[in-house]
Amino acid sequence: MNGLSYYTAYLENEISSLKLADEPHNLFDPLRYFLSLGGKRMRPILTLLSSEIFNTPKEESVCAALSLELFHNFSLIHDDIMDEAPVRRGKPTVHQKWNPSVAILSGDALYIAAYQQLANYSDQRLPLLLQRFNETAIEVCQGQQMDMDFESLDTVSEAEYIEMIRLKTSVLLGCALEFGAIVANQEEEIRKNLYEFGVSLGIAFQIQDDFLDLYGDPELFGKQVGGDVLSNKKTLLFLKAMQTGDKRLGKLIQMDADAQKVVYAQNLFEELGAKTATLEAMKSYYDQAMENLKQLEEKGLETGTLHALAQFLINRKL
Amino acid sequence: MNGLSYYTAYLENEISSLKLADEPHNLFDPLRYFLSLGGKRMRPILTLLSSEIFNTPKEESVCAALSLELFHNFSLIHDDIMDEAPVRRGKPTVHQKWNPSVAILSGDALYIAAYQQLANYSDQRLPLLLQRFNETAIEVCQGQQMDMDFESLDTVSEAEYIEMIRLKTSVLLGCALEFGAIVANQEEEIRKNLYEFGVSLGIAFQIQDDFLDLYGDPELFGKQVGGDVLSNKKTLLFLKAMQTGDKRLGKLIQMDADAQKVVYAQNLFEELGAKTATLEAMKSYYDQAMENLKQLEEKGLETGTLHALAQFLINRKL
Repeated sequence: MNGLSYYTAYLENEISSLKLADEPHNLFDPLRYFLSLGGKRMRPILTLLSSEIFNTPKEESVCAALSLELFHNFSLIHDDIMDEAPVRRGKPTVHQKWNPSVAILSGDALYIAAYQQLANYSDQRLPLLLQRFNETAIEVCQGQQMDMDFESLDTVSEAEYIEMIRLKTSVLLGCALEFGAIVANQEEEIRKNLYEFGVSLGIAFQIQDDFLDLYGDPELFGKQVGGDVLSNKKTLLFLKAMQTGDKRLGKLIQMDADAQKVVYAQNLFEELGAKTATLEAMKSYYDQAMENLKQLEEKGLETGTLHALAQFLINRKL
Repeated sequence: MNGLSYYTAYLENEISSLKLADEPHNLFDPLRYFLSLGGKRMRPILTLLSSEIFNTPKEESVCAALSLELFHNFSLIHDDIMDEAPVRRGKPTVHQKWNPSVAILSGDALYIAAYQQLANYSDQRLPLLLQRFNETAIEVCQGQQMDMDFESLDTVSEAEYIEMIRLKTSVLLGCALEFGAIVANQEEEIRKNLYEFGVSLGIAFQIQDDFLDLYGDPELFGKQVGGDVLSNKKTLLFLKAMQTGDKRLGKLIQMDADAQKVVYAQNLFEELGAKTATLEAMKSYYDQAMENLKQLEEKGLETGTLHALAQFLINRKL
């Protein structure tokens, strides 16, 4: 059983030695730049961990793993344009460092590079890999569009919010785990269990991310606290608070975007029970993920690394 | 042998009955809108004509044909954002009718839909279809980036210009013809001949397009004449004129963008021999395409429809 740091180092090396064309420079330099910004490499790690369960060597699953990491980076480059985000991982975004046209086109090229990784599987696994990749990719687009649509809506239901984060974030984690099983030629039921584990864990992780945005330790969280509140983002915390119909929420939305607003939200959401309800929602998706793991164990699979991973991703102290 | 109008009608029907998701509306409505704007459907027609040579029914090659049409439309949606084009086929572009974010994301979704068409080939043809699709797609991106890069350069060589139009336009026509042969399980040499025919014909067609932009009959050409000259675009006509080093070109570039500038360019380019040299370049690529067809004939293939197509695309009166 290989640890996360082992796979991270392996993947960093694979990513930095990816064969991409050189010219035109304005097409390929932005890709190399963006890929070099790092990140947790969570998606490809999931694929490698998943295939390891079936004793499939990492060299056999790495192209499937990379296809999802490249797809993820492509979607970030395009999302950053749409969100007008100036910074990603502490560095200027592509549209900021170059311009939006370069960011659109180099994003497109990165997306093609993802499919080039898939094309390395030229045997009977390819049709299923391609089909699942396409289905997941279109869902990620649907999630991003829902997220953008939510901005201009007065209210969003909790179910709609969960569906948005499921599509935008979680299905890709599920797909990453499923890819490990497809590369290892596993049957449909095992593939589905792994996929569902990834989706549940992904939803729990995203809820945690929203939670930490308001209640996290800025030193540990690595981001400024309260960004979502400052931009009146409809997170689960906010939606849970809205369900109480408390009139102070109207005041919160109108407040100037400063530190006072963040403290006001921290206290108000706690008083209204939204803080606790959000943690409970997170826990219920985490429990669901554990249930999915149990089903895999009942099929005789060794799920120790997936347990460790879930604990690594979800801060159990919350 | 089926005619172009037969295939066009068949394709229009296939495109309008494509299965796309409905929601979110802001993701899928723009796709349906853009696909409904029409166009010559040249790429999918090439695939159907090509597969017809090998007696492969259109129902067998239509998904490969559609994958390229969807890819082409995706690239147009994104190109229109980059070029800040307000109008496409007489209607507002997607970023104009909705906004740039919607245009980026619905373009991405359309690109995924292209790969979904490819995924319908779940047999031994899929690896090669996917590989050739990826190679062509990345080249189209390279061509678009070169085209954008050219805008800020003082000068571009004729070879660089031809390489740009080869990548941006012609390789996709070549790929469309090659796809017909791949679907029909043809050998590599035949595939390559068809590809080269498409590339040569595509370059000739693009040079003709540049030529007609300045010297075409506006009624027949369907566009305002002189658009390239008004925006000081480095077309082959312009580059051929530049090779003479004539000082009046500096004056042309400085002139206000009005009808007088167009007439000045028409006369100047003719006097400098650029008009004739451009027609000769077009003819030489057309001849090359005919040479490619001859090689196919020598292999015993019936190329009547491809001859007819070439004559249809290239106005032999020029």
